[in-house]
Amino acid sequence: MGKLANGKLPFELSEIEISVNARGTVVKIPLGDNEQLYGFGLQIGSFNQRGLRKKPVVNDNPLNDLGYTHAPSTFYVSTKGYGILINTSRYTTFYCGTTNELRDDSSKPTKSFGAANSVEDLYQNRKSASGNVVADIPGAKGIEIFIFEGPDLLTVLKRYNLFSGGGALPPMWALGVKYRVKADFNQSQAGAVADYFRKNHIPCDVIGLEPKWQTTAYSCSYVWNTQYFPSPNKFIDTMYRKGFKVNLWEHAFVNAASPLYHQLKSRAGNYLVWNGLVPDFADPVARNLFADYHKKTFVEHGIYGFKMDECDNSNLSFGSATWSFPEHSEFPSGIDGEQMHQVFGLLYQKSIYGIFKDMNKRTLLDVRSSNAFASSYPAAIYSDIYGHKDYIEMIGNSGFSGLIWSPEVRESNSVSDLMRRSQTAVLSAQTLYNSWYLQHPPWLQIDKEKNNRGELMDNAKTVEDDVRKLLNFRMSLIPYLYNAFSEYYLEGTPPFRALVVDYPDDKEVYNIADEYMIGQDLLAAPLTEKAEERSVYLPKGNWYDFNNNKKYEGGKSYKVKVGYTDLPLFVKEGTILPLAKPLEYITPQSRFEITCNLYGSQLRKTTLFEDDGTTFNYQNGNYGILSLAYTNGKGMINRTDKKRKSLYNIKNWNQIQ
Amino acid sequence: MGKLANGKLPFELSEIEISVNARGTVVKIPLGDNEQLYGFGLQIGSFNQRGLRKKPVVNDNPLNDLGYTHAPSTFYVSTKGYGILINTSRYTTFYCGTTNELRDDSSKPTKSFGAANSVEDLYQNRKSASGNVVADIPGAKGIEIFIFEGPDLLTVLKRYNLFSGGGALPPMWALGVKYRVKADFNQSQAGAVADYFRKNHIPCDVIGLEPKWQTTAYSCSYVWNTQYFPSPNKFIDTMYRKGFKVNLWEHAFVNAASPLYHQLKSRAGNYLVWNGLVPDFADPVARNLFADYHKKTFVEHGIYGFKMDECDNSNLSFGSATWSFPEHSEFPSGIDGEQMHQVFGLLYQKSIYGIFKDMNKRTLLDVRSSNAFASSYPAAIYSDIYGHKDYIEMIGNSGFSGLIWSPEVRESNSVSDLMRRSQTAVLSAQTLYNSWYLQHPPWLQIDKEKNNRGELMDNAKTVEDDVRKLLNFRMSLIPYLYNAFSEYYLEGTPPFRALVVDYPDDKEVYNIADEYMIGQDLLAAPLTEKAEERSVYLPKGNWYDFNNNKKYEGGKSYKVKVGYTDLPLFVKEGTILPLAKPLEYITPQSRFEITCNLYGSQLRKTTLFEDDGTTFNYQNGNYGILSLAYTNGKGMINRTDKKRKSLYNIKNWNQIQ
Repeated sequence: MGKLANGKLPFELSEIEISVNARGTVVKIPLGDNEQLYGFGLQIGSFNQRGLRKKPVVNDNPLNDLGYTHAPSTFYVSTKGYGILINTSRYTTFYCGTTNELRDDSSKPTKSFGAANSVEDLYQNRKSASGNVVADIPGAKGIEIFIFEGPDLLTVLKRYNLFSGGGALPPMWALGVKYRVKADFNQSQAGAVADYFRKNHIPCDVIGLEPKWQTTAYSCSYVWNTQYFPSPNKFIDTMYRKGFKVNLWEHAFVNAASPLYHQLKSRAGNYLVWNGLVPDFADPVARNLFADYHKKTFVEHGIYGFKMDECDNSNLSFGSATWSFPEHSEFPSGIDGEQMHQVFGLLYQKSIYGIFKDMNKRTLLDVRSSNAFASSYPAAIYSDIYGHKDYIEMIGNSGFSGLIWSPEVRESNSVSDLMRRSQTAVLSAQTLYNSWYLQHPPWLQIDKEKNNRGELMDNAKTVEDDVRKLLNFRMSLIPYLYNAFSEYYLEGTPPFRALVVDYPDDKEVYNIADEYMIGQDLLAAPLTEKAEERSVYLPKGNWYDFNNNKKYEGGKSYKVKVGYTDLPLFVKEGTILPLAKPLEYITPQSRFEITCNLYGSQLRKTTLFEDDGTTFNYQNGNYGILSLAYTNGKGMINRTDKKRKSLYNIKNWNQIQ
Repeated sequence: MGKLANGKLPFELSEIEISVNARGTVVKIPLGDNEQLYGFGLQIGSFNQRGLRKKPVVNDNPLNDLGYTHAPSTFYVSTKGYGILINTSRYTTFYCGTTNELRDDSSKPTKSFGAANSVEDLYQNRKSASGNVVADIPGAKGIEIFIFEGPDLLTVLKRYNLFSGGGALPPMWALGVKYRVKADFNQSQAGAVADYFRKNHIPCDVIGLEPKWQTTAYSCSYVWNTQYFPSPNKFIDTMYRKGFKVNLWEHAFVNAASPLYHQLKSRAGNYLVWNGLVPDFADPVARNLFADYHKKTFVEHGIYGFKMDECDNSNLSFGSATWSFPEHSEFPSGIDGEQMHQVFGLLYQKSIYGIFKDMNKRTLLDVRSSNAFASSYPAAIYSDIYGHKDYIEMIGNSGFSGLIWSPEVRESNSVSDLMRRSQTAVLSAQTLYNSWYLQHPPWLQIDKEKNNRGELMDNAKTVEDDVRKLLNFRMSLIPYLYNAFSEYYLEGTPPFRALVVDYPDDKEVYNIADEYMIGQDLLAAPLTEKAEERSVYLPKGNWYDFNNNKKYEGGKSYKVKVGYTDLPLFVKEGTILPLAKPLEYITPQSRFEITCNLYGSQLRKTTLFEDDGTTFNYQNGNYGILSLAYTNGKGMINRTDKKRKSLYNIKNWNQIQ
């Protein structure tokens, strides 16, 4: 840790122009010729944002990379080592070097335009060499801007995440596998799924229930449907004893059948969604009423998390649906629908997270929307778009904006698709199989209709074996991931981040959206359906293929084959990689048998984080760091908190090469 | 003509609620349970707008039927016989019965949501039974609303079009065929195309030149490129003598190489597009400078029209392009970029149309954007989206908003596609083949690459014969179409309109987007690629298949086969349909030999419009009406202006059946 280095802006603060008129506020920020820009929240479909116009508006649907996203952060970072956050919940358009102003010296004729003999000729992107980023914020009567200095891109992100409260540290069990059961499964069906996992030794830590657990769901009652779950608390306890945490689906639109309804009616927006109230989450009293009910009804009875759905105004991208409140809605707190849309998911998280914080009980929530300054909220964003390539690229993009992204697996087009998606899930912040419309786990039948008819694949058990191998790898990686998340909290370093964060001086990585770093030492390069091999660019230094230990010289691209039960993963030379003997699930009593793989000879010190894994006591310094070093053929272990019973038993040092 | 019937609103004016707050203005207009809503400009992808949220924003790209359109009119009409126009150039969102407000009596629990076992279950459109249309206009500090009364839907449209100045009456030649040549064709190549048409007796009235005729095109110089067109005025004259009008492509962004640049620099927006000025068309002086230059340089030298491209902010739908000015642009007239986007095409039309009006010379322009109150502007909208189904549906939609729509033909996927598109082009307001990136006419080679390599289809001449048949039919229909357009001017009746306009009490037509009326008596039901037959709903009354005179009883749907050289066209029983012997092109000297097809026995009177076909003198009453009646086995012709030499020679009365 220690103090972050001082940064320096590549321009003077006075060069930022802010103008306010009747329409709103416009901000112009200098932009150098060679700067590359990233961020704007969990962007889908675009990565390097220079030359684009981005309008980060909360939504599920990216729509031609307009900027629509589950997490519409008005925050971008530059390879020149600074970040800019426009602090607004108004829809803001960023012109990232795409505009040219009329000036006194604009009169030089431009070159004759060619014949445009093809559509391609005409449609080619004519990026201007504009000298600024322009942010247009209609409706804003002035604006607050946060500037995060580097000196480098990673330090900018650290500053941003630390300023946001430090990155979220999920409970250790949340780094295991989450499985969501079919929406209409009842208590015994959900229990049977859990038993199937244990019987077949498929790792799983969390079972998620979908809408039918409630008496009404669109909108929500937040009341157990006892026809389906006759004894919910018994169910939760039984599951817990088998090593499962139970997570409940919901959204925030409150049905009149809900005990919450009458309390919230005067603290809600003036439009209904699915006939349900929209709680005014900008009002702390409304947030507290919502939280208090959830605490007493669910969390105190052993519920360990919620899936907070439908908070992303997903109908904004469609003319036909009515899935949220209009933008002109009015809320008692004084904000309008547009503003509420942008912050609704964030405030929803604040409400629910508050329960767990109060109870000193960590969780990892699922949520459909977030925004700026959310780094400390333990909530993984998920999405319906389900494009695997997009899902991969969102991992890198999530790291620019203090977000946790969960590329969930549902049905697949082919076994290849399933395995490639599973590899990505295993190499992401949360490993989630979402079977909300599948009778059986997707690895038993990839096809949705057949799956629901119970027609399992002939090779179902072989595919299950293959998926189990990947999930076991996930469980092996937990100590390493947990350490990466601890550094997110302690230092602000995003555990998952694009290559450009670590290698801002390497022009080759400026547009690489489909590779990313996991922690300090691992580089992931997932494959999508049908690909047997892919091109992987490895930055400077040497790298090892995780699967076969083949060594590669960095600064080059390689065609690499990756099998279905292999991992599209590369290890930096000099890494001590601690891998655990896989557990099927994590409890407070879990201890890890560790093998340290040693890649190369000049080995860097590595660390593992030790705490109770489930409370916020680490925020009061109640944790230890286990250091691993290896010199002169000898492994060395050092622990800062020797009184603590260690989570890790370092069994082997395994020299690679 | 005569006075329109009085209408009556189905609600009290006082029931319209207007509220203004810091964010903008919200208007709520009552909506009955059984009302259907149409309009919002040239909508693409949606037709009956009830249950949808529409945001008519100027754009080429419909994006999931959000409401983006080339003509973002904030005008809708109801089957209950009224129309509402919110008079604003601010982006406005209409919630067409999709919102539910929280009220004191909102507390009844809604039914339990089912299991949602499928995505389909969950995603089904849950239309609310809302009692209003809500218009949200951020940034508007109050609003003007126009209400057009019926009593019926057609009368609403008549009132709207008459209020807008009466529908445009194109010159008669503009109802012929327009052909645009390849963008890089020079003077002799363009001339050769024209000669090819005459030599092969392919009807054509207009030859359009694409960007390369100018010295610079993106942005525009508006100066002939004499390398390509060494003697433009000679070219124009030669073409005219051969019966062709020349139309010039351009857009409104003024290159520094243009003689217009220095005059317009102080009357332009503060952002450049393709390094060109954006003229402040809200400033009459800027419009006049632009028009005056065009008049002296082009129109006075015989140019008969312009294709006014790129005025629809087409990059709004993409994060990647830089094809227009930002929304926060400022114009000297005081309007901003958002407002300018919405009206840019309309004001561009106003500028260019003014030249022709002043010179008492009619034209039909091509334009990429329009807006409300444009009925009197003779400009056909065209689009890049090129989806044939969309193109067909836009014909019906155009009639709700006083617009002329031109579903142009370019390359095709198959000969079937070409023929089906040609049928639609022939049955639309303007028949346009746009070969801006094709070396040869598309009927000689449908495939773009092969076309440009000169690899013509083996059956090119057969396909040309088939296309010629369709184009000849178009030429036969001109007297009928011209009359329909005269009624657009005189009575406000849209010449092309959806069935619901004529049959507002027939619930079966509420959602029929792909059939439309042409004039009083014809119903078109175009087919798309691969379809050999389609389902056609025919409203009450009897109908005749135009191709084989088969009679159908209305109020039912039929599967109908339509050949490639047939017309997907039905004639109402009782119609006297005047069809001309096809000409290859129209001049002031053109006279038509007419055969009147008589469908059934109780024949309605029909009319033909007679004027000089090229000037605005008809607006001073300088026209005649030729009436056709048929009773007791005898045709009767009556003319209101017997001194005028008739345009029509009624040769035959041809009893069908």
